[in-house]
Amino acid sequence: MKELFNLTSIPEARRILQEVFRPELKVEMVSLDEGMGRIAAQDIHAVEQVPNFSRSTKDGYALNAKDTYGASEALPGLLGLREEILMGEETTFTLAKGQAAYIPTGGMLPEGADAVLMIEYADLLSDDELLAFKEVASGENVVRKGEDVEVGDLLVPAGKRLRPQELGLLASQGIVEIPVYERFRVGILSTGNEIVAPEDTPKMGEIRDVNSYILRGEVRSTGAVAKIYPVARDEYQHLYDLVALAYEENHMVLISGGSSVGTRDYCLKVLKDLTGAEPLFHGIPLKPGKPALGAAKDGKVLLGLPGHPVSSRTVFDVLGKPLLRTEAENLWQSTVQGVLTRNVPSEAGRDDHIKVQVRKENGEIVVRPLLGVSGIVSLLTEGDGEIIIPAGTEGFPEGKQVTVYLY
Amino acid sequence: MKELFNLTSIPEARRILQEVFRPELKVEMVSLDEGMGRIAAQDIHAVEQVPNFSRSTKDGYALNAKDTYGASEALPGLLGLREEILMGEETTFTLAKGQAAYIPTGGMLPEGADAVLMIEYADLLSDDELLAFKEVASGENVVRKGEDVEVGDLLVPAGKRLRPQELGLLASQGIVEIPVYERFRVGILSTGNEIVAPEDTPKMGEIRDVNSYILRGEVRSTGAVAKIYPVARDEYQHLYDLVALAYEENHMVLISGGSSVGTRDYCLKVLKDLTGAEPLFHGIPLKPGKPALGAAKDGKVLLGLPGHPVSSRTVFDVLGKPLLRTEAENLWQSTVQGVLTRNVPSEAGRDDHIKVQVRKENGEIVVRPLLGVSGIVSLLTEGDGEIIIPAGTEGFPEGKQVTVYLY
Repeated sequence: MKELFNLTSIPEARRILQEVFRPELKVEMVSLDEGMGRIAAQDIHAVEQVPNFSRSTKDGYALNAKDTYGASEALPGLLGLREEILMGEETTFTLAKGQAAYIPTGGMLPEGADAVLMIEYADLLSDDELLAFKEVASGENVVRKGEDVEVGDLLVPAGKRLRPQELGLLASQGIVEIPVYERFRVGILSTGNEIVAPEDTPKMGEIRDVNSYILRGEVRSTGAVAKIYPVARDEYQHLYDLVALAYEENHMVLISGGSSVGTRDYCLKVLKDLTGAEPLFHGIPLKPGKPALGAAKDGKVLLGLPGHPVSSRTVFDVLGKPLLRTEAENLWQSTVQGVLTRNVPSEAGRDDHIKVQVRKENGEIVVRPLLGVSGIVSLLTEGDGEIIIPAGTEGFPEGKQVTVYLY
Repeated sequence: MKELFNLTSIPEARRILQEVFRPELKVEMVSLDEGMGRIAAQDIHAVEQVPNFSRSTKDGYALNAKDTYGASEALPGLLGLREEILMGEETTFTLAKGQAAYIPTGGMLPEGADAVLMIEYADLLSDDELLAFKEVASGENVVRKGEDVEVGDLLVPAGKRLRPQELGLLASQGIVEIPVYERFRVGILSTGNEIVAPEDTPKMGEIRDVNSYILRGEVRSTGAVAKIYPVARDEYQHLYDLVALAYEENHMVLISGGSSVGTRDYCLKVLKDLTGAEPLFHGIPLKPGKPALGAAKDGKVLLGLPGHPVSSRTVFDVLGKPLLRTEAENLWQSTVQGVLTRNVPSEAGRDDHIKVQVRKENGEIVVRPLLGVSGIVSLLTEGDGEIIIPAGTEGFPEGKQVTVYLY
């Protein structure tokens, strides 16, 4: 295993890539409707108080909490009743001491009121008198003016991905145009004389492109834009021209295939010539996916991926995806815990990504390893995700509770 | 807590909804490019073998395994060398007994070959002679014709959501038009005289619509299409007409707001009149989100959600989302495990959904509960997800390892 000494560790390869990946991103304005999943390009601050009046959170009676002090089931307090407060309308009157007014959930508190007594703790004595059977505290059942948001509050920090709730918060502020970064663009190309497009009928010895289509879906799942380029032949100039074009038009380029010695050499030479530098790394301790190649130029990253569909996807997941995700998204992933149905051996020295099926059996989540050849696409479609056996471990025993990273 | 006896349990409400939600979905053909995240409308079977020839998985020498029997470092076997096999071209010659031919990774095996000897275990003796330093087994370093996919194999079962790998598998078959169900359509409307659209400036007593925008994002995150309708006033006929229109145009309708007694009554009456039946349930043991209302007609579902943004989202997550997801997606969710930073009390009798922040501190994932008012939108934007304290439990202690369901 002498070769292992030349491999760049996965955390190190990730660190290197994070450091060099600094594409220049334009800022564009999008509507609330288009904002989902986009990344805020600047800190967005509140321009208005929310709510901009004190609102009731219950159906009940707006009053001054002090006027209920001492009130109880046995000894209710007596209050004067003012006119009803209407939903969606400004409350213009002021409560005097000892007065209350009916208020619906969401209604605007009048001046002089600081709390709401829930309707079930009050009884109307007459058209203008009310009994309160409970003390309320100041602020009870009320959202105070500005309690949700004050002018100047940071609503969304730059770099955060907009989720439904960020859009809701911006809507509440009347912010309907949002500054976001343009989407990451990722160019995808497959190499190899034997590769034809899915629309074409492969002749004997040829095979249809699979990697580009898996990678396109993977790229899109991060919110980035993917573009597939024509298949590159095993010729230096053809590959160079395509890679140079993809580099020009995108922030990241994924080149899959090139697993035969000839193509591997072309690919390495193209990346060297294009970037004017040695690759950042060449080979990582990953199974499947060892022959991964990283290069960069002017803040853009180019990744050479293996030709086997499962390997190329695994390398993209491990090295490419983290660059397209936010820091928060990289902290956590879709996982599920389950019990391993059998022993899974693994060579030490490499992170071993084992595809698995997850099933619910007798109320328990079980994880069934799919042990197969890495060239086989159906392994991915039959799999629900993967478990990772770390480089320092020689396998996992049957019955172990494992974390599955879902696809 | 007498009211609890009238509530429908959450699993029961889910079961009822799953049973009645049977919208008629049209089938449409989409391209590979549009297929991501769509649901297969029928079983898709393989039309071709993949690969359609036996391929090498290594750079090496194609040969008949038998011809290497007994070969070792000390006693290599001697083989005759045939012409080189070229990538992407049909191999037309047949190996005779005792012959081998150079083959690149992905190259087509000739007739008479059943294995590949890796290049590092061979030495060229002359232009037409080769020494093999290792025995290989039949099938070694070869993907056999049809090994990945045989004609007739089930590639994608009906009802499965198309992930990148399903698209890759279909690409490998030349299947570039895919039968999928039309997307679920969900109509969203907010009710309340106090609610105005985000583009409008709320007058005193009014407030901008938030729920529709949070719900739209949530709906879209499942792959469904969302349409926001105008805000319904607190008037029976206006609400009825809007709900009827949304029902007509969609498979599911979400009506949020109506938390004041008057609107609640209108909403209940509209749902009864529209469906011609009592609601399926009214009230679930959920905090926040008790006043949830479910109705159905002709396979379509209408959900009445609370007016508070946090509550309405929680009810949609618990009752609406599962209907828009596939069975497999409902089995697992995006979760992360972490340690609770403080005690979280909870009333028994209801599932308590507590919003939390997740942070990495000193290499440990910690979960910090955000204990706030349910009307406050920023609670959602500050939160990374939620923990669920089940109805039968009175809270979680500090230090407990908890599962966070990420937003």
